[in-house]
Amino acid sequence: MDCSVPLSQPPAFLKPIPVPAMVDYDEAQAILSALADALDGPQIDIIPLAQANGRILAENVSATTPRPEADISAMDGYAFCCADIPTNGAHSISLPLQDCIVAGDQPSTHNRSTAATILTGARIPLGADCVIARERVTMGDGVIHLNTADALVGKNIRRAGEEFPVGHPLLKVGQKLDWRHISLLASQNIKHLAVYKPYRIGVLANGAELASDAPDYRADINTPMLCAMLESMGLHVQHHTVGSDSQAELRDSVNELAAQSDIIITTGGISVGQTDNVLPVMEQLGACCLFRRVKIRPGKPFTLMRQAETPVFCLPGNPGAAAICTQIFVLPFLRSISGTNPQQAASPTLSGRSSFAFSSPSDATCLIPVHYAQSGKEGVFSLVPSQGASDVLCFSHASGILRIPAGQTIKVGDWCAAMALSAV
Amino acid sequence: MDCSVPLSQPPAFLKPIPVPAMVDYDEAQAILSALADALDGPQIDIIPLAQANGRILAENVSATTPRPEADISAMDGYAFCCADIPTNGAHSISLPLQDCIVAGDQPSTHNRSTAATILTGARIPLGADCVIARERVTMGDGVIHLNTADALVGKNIRRAGEEFPVGHPLLKVGQKLDWRHISLLASQNIKHLAVYKPYRIGVLANGAELASDAPDYRADINTPMLCAMLESMGLHVQHHTVGSDSQAELRDSVNELAAQSDIIITTGGISVGQTDNVLPVMEQLGACCLFRRVKIRPGKPFTLMRQAETPVFCLPGNPGAAAICTQIFVLPFLRSISGTNPQQAASPTLSGRSSFAFSSPSDATCLIPVHYAQSGKEGVFSLVPSQGASDVLCFSHASGILRIPAGQTIKVGDWCAAMALSAV
Repeated sequence: MDCSVPLSQPPAFLKPIPVPAMVDYDEAQAILSALADALDGPQIDIIPLAQANGRILAENVSATTPRPEADISAMDGYAFCCADIPTNGAHSISLPLQDCIVAGDQPSTHNRSTAATILTGARIPLGADCVIARERVTMGDGVIHLNTADALVGKNIRRAGEEFPVGHPLLKVGQKLDWRHISLLASQNIKHLAVYKPYRIGVLANGAELASDAPDYRADINTPMLCAMLESMGLHVQHHTVGSDSQAELRDSVNELAAQSDIIITTGGISVGQTDNVLPVMEQLGACCLFRRVKIRPGKPFTLMRQAETPVFCLPGNPGAAAICTQIFVLPFLRSISGTNPQQAASPTLSGRSSFAFSSPSDATCLIPVHYAQSGKEGVFSLVPSQGASDVLCFSHASGILRIPAGQTIKVGDWCAAMALSAV
Repeated sequence: MDCSVPLSQPPAFLKPIPVPAMVDYDEAQAILSALADALDGPQIDIIPLAQANGRILAENVSATTPRPEADISAMDGYAFCCADIPTNGAHSISLPLQDCIVAGDQPSTHNRSTAATILTGARIPLGADCVIARERVTMGDGVIHLNTADALVGKNIRRAGEEFPVGHPLLKVGQKLDWRHISLLASQNIKHLAVYKPYRIGVLANGAELASDAPDYRADINTPMLCAMLESMGLHVQHHTVGSDSQAELRDSVNELAAQSDIIITTGGISVGQTDNVLPVMEQLGACCLFRRVKIRPGKPFTLMRQAETPVFCLPGNPGAAAICTQIFVLPFLRSISGTNPQQAASPTLSGRSSFAFSSPSDATCLIPVHYAQSGKEGVFSLVPSQGASDVLCFSHASGILRIPAGQTIKVGDWCAAMALSAV
């Protein structure tokens, strides 16, 4: 089999984009973008508010209840009607005290020429139009004495709808929900809401060296690493490890995962060696290849396929390369189809000056893990020593990935933008 | 009861710090810091690696296995011994081919004057010291022809321990684990590890207006909001809502939560009105008050207590004030006692120029929600319109909280640092 060419023609929807045997970074991203557009959007879940943290809102939410819900007192004090205050120049007045109104009460109409004790957040009785703070009055025997200058219509009253009225747009489809949005939803007494269903991701590692009884056993780094990345995004992950170089076993595992997954990610077995079984197995399963290898370093073997409706990301087995391909291609793709609004779906970036010089070769875009730190008012990128495609230690010192296009150079002091590494 | 003074003397461990009736921002943080130091550290959980994402490592981890584990081939090619290459000036040589070595094999000793097919990641057989890439040779009948200039000892061989040797320190106690660390742990074939146990937080809202049958019912905003904040930190949260102004019911709920919680957070009922039951109930339960109100705006009623060993954060009921107190005081406190290393426990900050002027009054530190955006190479803060203590809508437009100490002013263009709001 010649693995350097696509297994089959690209599907119709991708026809406008040429799919060469090997693509460059921009072509790979364009093909992923077209694939994202061609997929059905995420499904919708109706969930209780208590489970909404971190989910993506699938409906617009406008206010059905204003805030405040009614005219309420802004402090502990006394409610009265300013029309009861004499305009004859008297400096003070005494008003007999009524019952206390507390938050939760539905007070009866205010009795003119009296004052009602009222607590913070309690509803202003109909007919009262001013609240005087507790510390501004003196108490007599069942009466309060207040300064007439303190009587101002609306004083210490928070008006219904002052924060937002009924109909005010609160949240938009595609909002990733955190406490800032949960509080707004709670203010509307929303008990259930529509959110997008997270995709089910199948992660599949393969290679005889991963079998626990292999003569030269290697621990599977990629599966726990990818599961952590994907679960941090709120995705549902299932994983298989095929500890053999058997195409039949790999095929069975792909089939099993495909039945339970919306998207499959494989690691290993995608180079051109005799035990690189992913491509032949996917061919047997009738998959089509959207691109075969990318002109990047590390990560060149990265291949994108589609089996029926299921996108299949075929990552290199070297964990450093697998991590970079996932950060640069897979996670942004998954965010773009998650239902998140495009602004929030964009990968977070770090910007600052480079403290090092770097030149990419003419035939590969380099993707280099970088450390980022604030130095005065500017961010500064520094190189993280790395052994290349297999290195995982480098990431624990890195905060971003700097992309240097093929044939381009950055100099010390150049202003750069890096993609922030995903974290918990 | 006079609620403006502490309920009792501060406990001995806090004696060096004066605990006035009302503290300023710095005093409040100092008392919280002393309280954090006085608490027992978090307990330890032993958990499987698959559950470690987001947890905090409770042990140092050094390499017990080097990476690479052995000398391995960096590519698909052919392994041979450079000593077999003639030094008589010949430009090429033919070597008969041996069996193929794949990753997972434990190859037997290399037969001199032959070449072994070897795949990426496979172990170099003893006696071979060079790998030539597949594409650099021509194939004959059971032999390869290679250029003698390509024979260099160590070429295309990744040496055992090249990324890190046995004994190399990999991770330190207090590291919050994400995929970058999970991959390192997986490389060591670690199946279980020690992490800090998350604290159990009891959240308790109180007020008659929260009862679903209250004549002037109000939805409980604080509980879902706080649960979202705390759960995003990986904490275990239980919550009660006491929908009454009954001290007995509040006392029962505090007792019930205290039995199941390491830390309690109450909202509402901490001002000085007749239905502000939190302080009298805590007094009945024998709690001591570490500070009573803070000179901040919003959030002045914020009070810190300790009942037996349990810290009790008493937040205002106004959700805007409760949110700000939690972001500024409670979450940083919880991070500081979580076992996370101090660098990671520090609240993330945003820095940039202010696009607005603001003066704090002489008697209160102002805590204002701000929007943050990149403008060219600098961050810029802008004001988020806010109605004050009760406002929750403002947070959905904010990304940080700017603290302006009492009596201080910021001018347009001043360089500022804000605390980033916590998110998912």
